[in-house]
Amino acid sequence: MTAPRAYTQELAEFVAGLRYDQLPPAVVARTEELFLDWAASALAAKGLHPIPQFEGFARAMGPASGPAEILVSRTRSSAFFAAWVNAASSHLVEQDDLHNSSVLHPATVVFPAALAAAQDLGKSGAELIAASVAGYEAGIRIGEFLGRSHYKIFHTTATVGTLAAAVAVGRLLDLTPAQMVNALGSAGTQAAGLWEFLRDAADSKQLHTAHAAANGLAAAYLAKSGVTGAQRILEGAQGLAAGMSSDADPARLVDRLGSRWALLETSFKFHSSCRHTHPAADALLDLMQREGLAASDIAAVIARVHQGAIDVLGAVDVPVTVHQAKFSMGTVLGLIAVYGKAGLEEFRDHALSDPRVAAFRAKVRMALDPEVDGAYPRRWLGRVEVTTLDGRTLRGALDEPKGDPGNPLSRAELEDKARRLARFSGAASEAEASALIARVWSLHEASSVASLF
Amino acid sequence: MTAPRAYTQELAEFVAGLRYDQLPPAVVARTEELFLDWAASALAAKGLHPIPQFEGFARAMGPASGPAEILVSRTRSSAFFAAWVNAASSHLVEQDDLHNSSVLHPATVVFPAALAAAQDLGKSGAELIAASVAGYEAGIRIGEFLGRSHYKIFHTTATVGTLAAAVAVGRLLDLTPAQMVNALGSAGTQAAGLWEFLRDAADSKQLHTAHAAANGLAAAYLAKSGVTGAQRILEGAQGLAAGMSSDADPARLVDRLGSRWALLETSFKFHSSCRHTHPAADALLDLMQREGLAASDIAAVIARVHQGAIDVLGAVDVPVTVHQAKFSMGTVLGLIAVYGKAGLEEFRDHALSDPRVAAFRAKVRMALDPEVDGAYPRRWLGRVEVTTLDGRTLRGALDEPKGDPGNPLSRAELEDKARRLARFSGAASEAEASALIARVWSLHEASSVASLF
Repeated sequence: MTAPRAYTQELAEFVAGLRYDQLPPAVVARTEELFLDWAASALAAKGLHPIPQFEGFARAMGPASGPAEILVSRTRSSAFFAAWVNAASSHLVEQDDLHNSSVLHPATVVFPAALAAAQDLGKSGAELIAASVAGYEAGIRIGEFLGRSHYKIFHTTATVGTLAAAVAVGRLLDLTPAQMVNALGSAGTQAAGLWEFLRDAADSKQLHTAHAAANGLAAAYLAKSGVTGAQRILEGAQGLAAGMSSDADPARLVDRLGSRWALLETSFKFHSSCRHTHPAADALLDLMQREGLAASDIAAVIARVHQGAIDVLGAVDVPVTVHQAKFSMGTVLGLIAVYGKAGLEEFRDHALSDPRVAAFRAKVRMALDPEVDGAYPRRWLGRVEVTTLDGRTLRGALDEPKGDPGNPLSRAELEDKARRLARFSGAASEAEASALIARVWSLHEASSVASLF
Repeated sequence: MTAPRAYTQELAEFVAGLRYDQLPPAVVARTEELFLDWAASALAAKGLHPIPQFEGFARAMGPASGPAEILVSRTRSSAFFAAWVNAASSHLVEQDDLHNSSVLHPATVVFPAALAAAQDLGKSGAELIAASVAGYEAGIRIGEFLGRSHYKIFHTTATVGTLAAAVAVGRLLDLTPAQMVNALGSAGTQAAGLWEFLRDAADSKQLHTAHAAANGLAAAYLAKSGVTGAQRILEGAQGLAAGMSSDADPARLVDRLGSRWALLETSFKFHSSCRHTHPAADALLDLMQREGLAASDIAAVIARVHQGAIDVLGAVDVPVTVHQAKFSMGTVLGLIAVYGKAGLEEFRDHALSDPRVAAFRAKVRMALDPEVDGAYPRRWLGRVEVTTLDGRTLRGALDEPKGDPGNPLSRAELEDKARRLARFSGAASEAEASALIARVWSLHEASSVASLF
């Protein structure tokens, strides 16, 4: 009898051995871009519910000082609580990155844990980058492994995020491959996060990323100190896939390790809404510009989507919170139609109060599209069907939403986005935002990452 | 259309409204007994792997002082980290309590969280007792609700423990029913814990209870501060049962609230092994005493068990760690046969090294028994079939393992057990153990629980 292939072991060996000098320059540069995008997303949450509550709990339960920065407050704590608060912060305004085929938001779970551990351990920018890449490469493959069935009930960023954070922190701790397996075991057995909160517009999305980053970090530190974990937490008979997936494919765990850089496939978010709304939003914007349509010219819109969009967005008819509005296809398309964009300001100032947006929302419905669904999650195709008031039926199609790897944001666009995010909450002055940007663009040369500010 | 019954809401209303003066005297007394049994279980883990590693992480990531006691070290920290370490400690030596039909170990997740919060909030012994009862009543019903399918893959004490801890702490925080629903939502979406670690004898069992107690506590504190959670985390379409059970029965969530005291159904552990081994161990001991058999008279033993025992115990053939030995039916029956008991000392000193135990282990096998399986998990029937060297086939049967509600431990036996546990690790002197026992027997009158020692 042949022993079953040890997928968890193979993945652990790769990430435990990953060195900065193995990374292609494009991967280093993209990691800096993702890091800036992440830090700005965290800053944008300053003062917004429920982030002050998370800060309060960390103050009450964590140390009053420490090596790791809490970005929204610029206070310091232990690595555990800094990771916890920063992860909650960076997943609030729906501006953090997304990897398509894994449906994982890697930045919001990998970077908070990696930055906190790097600050705790006195690591360099290059070491932070290599560890973050390890977290992305592992997390993306684990998300792909767990498949679409997992995402129907579980918030992949929450569950897989725990493992991705553990890998990044484990790399900073120089875990051996055997210790990395233990870290994955301890992380995987703490992996949690259900979509149920979404229908109530509850605050769990931030709790999910906080939970993932902090407990993933703990799993790696515990592994370093000799705590063991399951050896096959991913593919074992009572492991993660056995409990939480019905279409898991273990081959995805080790897909082209070292030659495919999955981090490069990560998308930046352009609109401030759930990523599932972006393909239709871009397709509608493109169609309206092409045809010279105004919102008032439109009688009805069918957004032709994949099943996952219906699962995630379908729970809410009329949003009552800004956060819920970001998961409302009708509201997002309404902002696009009326304002030409769906940014943080549009959501805050108009998503719930502008009657034109509400009127447009009532004209929108989603329909499952076989072509779109078949391409998902590898490709996120945008397809809309618009009926005009004068009786025409028009079709919009866009194959790569703005921010996708094939339709990327430039460094100038990323800088602009980062400045807007920092400005939105007042978390950093223009000068501080500029300094942060400059620091991140030279992250690979930084001997220390002890202070982002 | 009628709205579906709001089970989570009903359960939350009951536990949020539970007052000490509603509790029957027997419930108060039993809670004290369970609390002593729990505290002694925690003390017994002092110095044993991986508890020093947990203490080290809490020291590194938590505050250097605080309101809440860490029992094994008699240091203090925040409520979060005290709950984390005490929960890990109390689930190590396999002496903590078990509720049969939910297959939940309530003490190891409820008491660490409740004690830490009570110390943080300056609560009385009566308030601690009422909160703990709330945690037991909710946790047991949630465990029953999730059913046997859940327990096949998930460690119910880990998953349900998060909610049970949140309820106990939520009661101490005087959460309103609406806040209690939020606490359940935040706890349930962090619920995690897979059995996969068992086949590798990994350290996750302690991590599971630590994770449950600390994150359950966090869920309640966050709810108090205004953080919301899913309103139907238990029974919702993307909730706990949807993701982690295929035989969930929502009616169990609200089963005779206020008239059935499920806490009274909790069993004390007599042997130091996995509870799934106890029915067969007691049946074998009974048979050997009845027939005057020695271990050397026995050629073969068939332990007739329920499926859950095979699922949990079947992964390991020959244990290599003491902890694994506690999950080895053959080893447990070997200790019973050779030493007449399977206590902490027998496991530490003989389970892995005594060739007579190893020889007996090789004679034991498990077989699924329809009667035993049909009664489980409500009743844990002990059935063994012994073949003697002189060719006889003998049957042993015992319907209530020692420690079950129908075959309980007296206060004198509980005191003796507590003293043995404290002595085992040297965590408390005989005088300190006596003082602890006296303090617990008057817990219901204590105006403060700030210090157990």
